[in-house]
Amino acid sequence: MAEILNGNGAQAVGVCPLPFTDYREIVLGHGSGGKLSQDLIQKIVLPRFRNEWIAPLHDGAIVPVNGTRVAFSTDSYVVHPLFFPGGDIGKLAIHGTVNDLAMCGGKPLYLSSALILEEGTPSEDLVRVVDSMREAALEAGVALVTGDTKVVDRGKADGIFINTSGIGIVPDGVNISASRAVPGDKILVSGSIAMHGIAILSVREGLEFESEIASDTAPLNGLVAAMLAECPDIHVLRDPTRGGVTSALTEIAQGAGVGMLLDEASIPIDEEVKGACEILGLDPLYVANEGKLLAIVAAADAARVLAAMRQHPLGRDAAIIGEVTSQYRSFVAIKTRVGGTRVVDMLPGEQLPRIC
Amino acid sequence: MAEILNGNGAQAVGVCPLPFTDYREIVLGHGSGGKLSQDLIQKIVLPRFRNEWIAPLHDGAIVPVNGTRVAFSTDSYVVHPLFFPGGDIGKLAIHGTVNDLAMCGGKPLYLSSALILEEGTPSEDLVRVVDSMREAALEAGVALVTGDTKVVDRGKADGIFINTSGIGIVPDGVNISASRAVPGDKILVSGSIAMHGIAILSVREGLEFESEIASDTAPLNGLVAAMLAECPDIHVLRDPTRGGVTSALTEIAQGAGVGMLLDEASIPIDEEVKGACEILGLDPLYVANEGKLLAIVAAADAARVLAAMRQHPLGRDAAIIGEVTSQYRSFVAIKTRVGGTRVVDMLPGEQLPRIC
Repeated sequence: MAEILNGNGAQAVGVCPLPFTDYREIVLGHGSGGKLSQDLIQKIVLPRFRNEWIAPLHDGAIVPVNGTRVAFSTDSYVVHPLFFPGGDIGKLAIHGTVNDLAMCGGKPLYLSSALILEEGTPSEDLVRVVDSMREAALEAGVALVTGDTKVVDRGKADGIFINTSGIGIVPDGVNISASRAVPGDKILVSGSIAMHGIAILSVREGLEFESEIASDTAPLNGLVAAMLAECPDIHVLRDPTRGGVTSALTEIAQGAGVGMLLDEASIPIDEEVKGACEILGLDPLYVANEGKLLAIVAAADAARVLAAMRQHPLGRDAAIIGEVTSQYRSFVAIKTRVGGTRVVDMLPGEQLPRIC
Repeated sequence: MAEILNGNGAQAVGVCPLPFTDYREIVLGHGSGGKLSQDLIQKIVLPRFRNEWIAPLHDGAIVPVNGTRVAFSTDSYVVHPLFFPGGDIGKLAIHGTVNDLAMCGGKPLYLSSALILEEGTPSEDLVRVVDSMREAALEAGVALVTGDTKVVDRGKADGIFINTSGIGIVPDGVNISASRAVPGDKILVSGSIAMHGIAILSVREGLEFESEIASDTAPLNGLVAAMLAECPDIHVLRDPTRGGVTSALTEIAQGAGVGMLLDEASIPIDEEVKGACEILGLDPLYVANEGKLLAIVAAADAARVLAAMRQHPLGRDAAIIGEVTSQYRSFVAIKTRVGGTRVVDMLPGEQLPRIC
């Protein structure tokens, strides 16, 4: 996801363990989507770029253009390896920005694509990636309208990096913002979690499971449109990419000054993915997704939003997984299968580098 | 500049020496802004992304958003070194995208910033770069509204890469397009050429000149606004970055099916830069600029556009340097100081890698 350029979280207790300048240099954790990422954004970027559009935004900005609310988002993709079960960097680059726009409630229209290529990258790889971008753009119904290509010397990049940025129109009546999460709201997820991260890890580490675990990478704009058609008053949308469900919900909790209580037993997770997480010692709640969304809606709307999600191919396994609370302020708590409650936090640093 | 996603040039004779697949791998020249770059765009990217907005566009796309013409552009910056006389990668990243939007006739409003950081990059460098972006955005009057940060392992990037994308509004009555260059039009440049490329090269190669040669990096939106206020009917605007004046004009010539005839003696060039080019064996017409623009206007408008340019601090040394012709179709010809005429072409490959 494009990142929170969100000042609200800056006051949250314990988020910023050190002044940024105490890090002498950049570490992988600064790109984790967890605490160190927040730290970098809040201490380096935000103080320098405060403006009225930047503050309440998560997956992108909503800016006024001649009276139209335009969603605008950017993301760079540095996933390693370039090709993985269920997708590749090209697909990810289209889906990621389409999804960021959709999470703002925007209908994605136009995308840009900027490539940074390492000298020596096989032409065949580039062709495969661009083919994949084409297919993904067609599927998502967006037009790729402008681009850029840079080449850097061998050893100064890693094959192919892609930036996509995008713009879309936010329809009247739609008002999606992390700050709208209020106690009593229900939290929904659109399907099984943790698939993307495990797919990347399995190919990277040469792990084999009974059946191949594929990334869930997918464009979510169609699903969001179906949800908004049923209920324009969705409060919050978020795609839990880097840092997984926990980091995404913690950011929302911090931004809105609320808590979250999840019911572990209701969180959909594929058996094979669950097994892989157990073997690898990973908590699936921290593992990246690329084709799932979290929605926060008023309790009274939850059942019909859930029904609308389940009617869409990308929301078949949707579930209500918890609710927004006034307890656990700025944190996510989980009611475990055995009946206890544990409070989780964002990852401090990097779990799986270069997941997207 | 964001690159020509322009299919017209594909028919130009001699532009594409080989089918792209004949290159087994990416070479530095594919990022040169010259023939190899064109080849990559025309053979890999364009056939896969044809749409109604992509075709006539150069520095960015102009797309309809609820009835408003929105300019949308993207560029990645991989300049080496990160800091150089007159600027740094942060300044360049803001100026470059502001300028691309301005070259579409758009008033730049909002920018995104996506950083790819190499693990181990000194935090101090990042702070310096972000400070510089802030200053450049304030100067250009644009708001940075959304962003992204990725970190890659040591040795998989080179310090800091930045992508900026931007959106702006194209005012009614403004219609800037390479295809509008017609024989008889005058060609103007806003000031001394080749400064950016020589500044980068001097620091990279440790060259010393009598006085320091600084990059000309600057935001051109103010200059463009002044020009459009005087004459809304400017035909073409282009900032001659990678590949310099010659590549930019050749692209326009190819796109519009016209020729260009320049008068060498009238092209402004700083004496020190000229001397440096002679020592280095570089033709200043191929060297990158980051704070200069080319304008093509009807002959009848040339004098007043020139006067408007000269009244602006960034156009003080503006000059009429040639005209559009029906001769030399798809090429740029230069009337030399000694009275001859030579036809020049785009660079086949890379002159100065990683200039921006």
